[in-house]
Amino acid sequence: MAVLVQKFGGTSVADAQKIRRAAGRALNAAKQGFQVVVVASARGHQTDHLIADALEVNPNPPKREMDMLLSTGEQQTVSLFAMALEGMGQKAISFTGAQIQMMTDNSYTKARIQSIGVDRIFNKLNEGYIVIVAGFQGVDEQGNITTLGRGGSDTSAVALAAALKAQMCEIFTDVDGVYTSDPRKYPKAVKMDQISYDEILELASLGAGVMHSRSIEFGKKYNVIIHVRSSMNDSKGTIITHEVPQMEGILVSGATIQKDLAKIGLVDVDNKPGNAAKVFAQLAEAKIVVNDIIQTEVSADKANLSFTCAKSDLGDAKKVIEKMQSQVNCKAIFVRDDIAEVSVVGVGMRSHYGVATKLFKALADAKVNIDSITTSEIRISCIVDLKDGDKALTVVCDAFELDKPVDQRK
Amino acid sequence: MAVLVQKFGGTSVADAQKIRRAAGRALNAAKQGFQVVVVASARGHQTDHLIADALEVNPNPPKREMDMLLSTGEQQTVSLFAMALEGMGQKAISFTGAQIQMMTDNSYTKARIQSIGVDRIFNKLNEGYIVIVAGFQGVDEQGNITTLGRGGSDTSAVALAAALKAQMCEIFTDVDGVYTSDPRKYPKAVKMDQISYDEILELASLGAGVMHSRSIEFGKKYNVIIHVRSSMNDSKGTIITHEVPQMEGILVSGATIQKDLAKIGLVDVDNKPGNAAKVFAQLAEAKIVVNDIIQTEVSADKANLSFTCAKSDLGDAKKVIEKMQSQVNCKAIFVRDDIAEVSVVGVGMRSHYGVATKLFKALADAKVNIDSITTSEIRISCIVDLKDGDKALTVVCDAFELDKPVDQRK
Repeated sequence: MAVLVQKFGGTSVADAQKIRRAAGRALNAAKQGFQVVVVASARGHQTDHLIADALEVNPNPPKREMDMLLSTGEQQTVSLFAMALEGMGQKAISFTGAQIQMMTDNSYTKARIQSIGVDRIFNKLNEGYIVIVAGFQGVDEQGNITTLGRGGSDTSAVALAAALKAQMCEIFTDVDGVYTSDPRKYPKAVKMDQISYDEILELASLGAGVMHSRSIEFGKKYNVIIHVRSSMNDSKGTIITHEVPQMEGILVSGATIQKDLAKIGLVDVDNKPGNAAKVFAQLAEAKIVVNDIIQTEVSADKANLSFTCAKSDLGDAKKVIEKMQSQVNCKAIFVRDDIAEVSVVGVGMRSHYGVATKLFKALADAKVNIDSITTSEIRISCIVDLKDGDKALTVVCDAFELDKPVDQRK
Repeated sequence: MAVLVQKFGGTSVADAQKIRRAAGRALNAAKQGFQVVVVASARGHQTDHLIADALEVNPNPPKREMDMLLSTGEQQTVSLFAMALEGMGQKAISFTGAQIQMMTDNSYTKARIQSIGVDRIFNKLNEGYIVIVAGFQGVDEQGNITTLGRGGSDTSAVALAAALKAQMCEIFTDVDGVYTSDPRKYPKAVKMDQISYDEILELASLGAGVMHSRSIEFGKKYNVIIHVRSSMNDSKGTIITHEVPQMEGILVSGATIQKDLAKIGLVDVDNKPGNAAKVFAQLAEAKIVVNDIIQTEVSADKANLSFTCAKSDLGDAKKVIEKMQSQVNCKAIFVRDDIAEVSVVGVGMRSHYGVATKLFKALADAKVNIDSITTSEIRISCIVDLKDGDKALTVVCDAFELDKPVDQRK
């Protein structure tokens, strides 16, 4: 019998009625012949409430105790979920992370999964139970409760699907699937039927925010087919899977915009081996996450070096750079916090020419000036003026026909 | 170093401020040189809220899942308690029942403790930690979470004190200690300095409701000295301990009244061996708890048999009796639900005469008619008319000077 993992996020189990609806889905899957494993998050805003409770007791709570506290949210949901199924006449049993040996390292609040004990789950599945597992949580070697960080229930679900060799991992959420662009910013965006792990990883890191990146990495590594779909209806959502040949025919799968970036430029840096390394080592030490790096030679021994980071890190980043300005013999420093980054992502770029040209032409036609450009194998990003950001996203989406399903594009 | 177990009930940890106050007490004890183990209940009405959540999902929730759900209440408290201590600069670590191997049978919702793993606790105590253990919960051999039933945190605390060979088990609660009678019913009642396990067991079963009977039985069995005291002040409360010689000088330690009883009488039952057994076997089968049983011979072959039970069980009990009326050849059945039972308890009764006389005289002087009388080695109970109940309690308390500390009595 095929195993199906179903993950329900906090909004999908927020109250008794929603828990019963979610339980009904699990029951349907069982009736269709699947062995069903449910992974559930904490109800609604429970986690936020618990964090508030902790901060009231201690503004700087120890992380081990934080994990002990937060893990109760998921434990409550899974027991209620099992009760709901039992109320429908379906045998059901709930487990904490510890009970199924969801073993992690001991990095409290952001633990990494190391292994999962599947025997107990398979035993119960084979006895006809639907098994409900608390997401987001694990246990270290000493039996201390750990959590996987925000969005960690997605990771729990995909990791369980991998360990159980599930046919699929369904992620039920409050959106219909993954869209070609954020519908709040590009209202004509359409739902994608499928997308590759690599594409959604690029989109996630660019702020599309549909799923936790770590869960996608897990899925990619262990070949878990992920179906992101709505908990409110039965429509097909978006399948996240390995690249299939037809994906190559699609130039661009999705487009995103990021407005919370800032850029720092170092003008006329000595172009010596190790200088760039020095800059980014010091930024890393100050715990500043650098997004894109651009370096261009301006002469035989001088280069311009610039990078982007979160706007909230700009002040700290500037201090780091000013402190080391003389070390790298930099003539001037400039800072921009009025930028937006528009990106297009698609595995089709690997084998097709003309994506960049089409992108630049769309921006030029709309009279949007491009500050700088960075690319990866399946992504092209342009930094533009913040005031042009929304327009830029719209013309780029239009240019790549992201308002149409794949089969209706030219 | 001596170990001290401190148990805080739900009202003593209801909010952040109360948790910090309770944590302050634990810290003080640590500063006095104790190795401190805290046992905490769920905050305020958390358990009631969780029960309501469960019933909303399933009016008849499976007990295993109920325990999974309810155990989260205590887990939340202990993590918050540890955070509070850490905030005061004190090393602290919280544990679930499972983490310290609080092993129980698998009678969900009313599990019995079988053994406790003390190594992990002692390791942490020896490293200078205050250890906080979730009360009310344990784990069975298969790793399923169990709970000990309402009031089970008292049992957790006393059992831990026994396992850790603690010098004392302090039970912090919202009353100052154990009173000679319920102050709401006998306002002149005074706090007892000490009381024996046997006495408080009689008082608890008579509805004094200070502590869970099972925890007292544990204390008695394993010689745990229990100190019931207020979480709101530093006054000495009541010490519950083995009988000491000076207790024998006290005729009566406390008096109680129960008003939620009913009485059923079987008139002129055939006085044959096995008839009483038949009656009570059938009542037990109907899950009716019988309090007192009184049988009196009325002739060589006939007896009157009566018993008391909770008023809420009266309807069921009556049905059982009516069904078997002919089997025991009973002439008539009578029922009373307008009764109160007034009891006095004291180990001094064992070696002193005159307690019964004094009791009956006090009631007679107050013109209270006695319906029936039952006794144990350290208890005398009188059933009186419900309308006379409060007066009866008062005159009995006055007669035994329960409004005065022991050393001021005649």
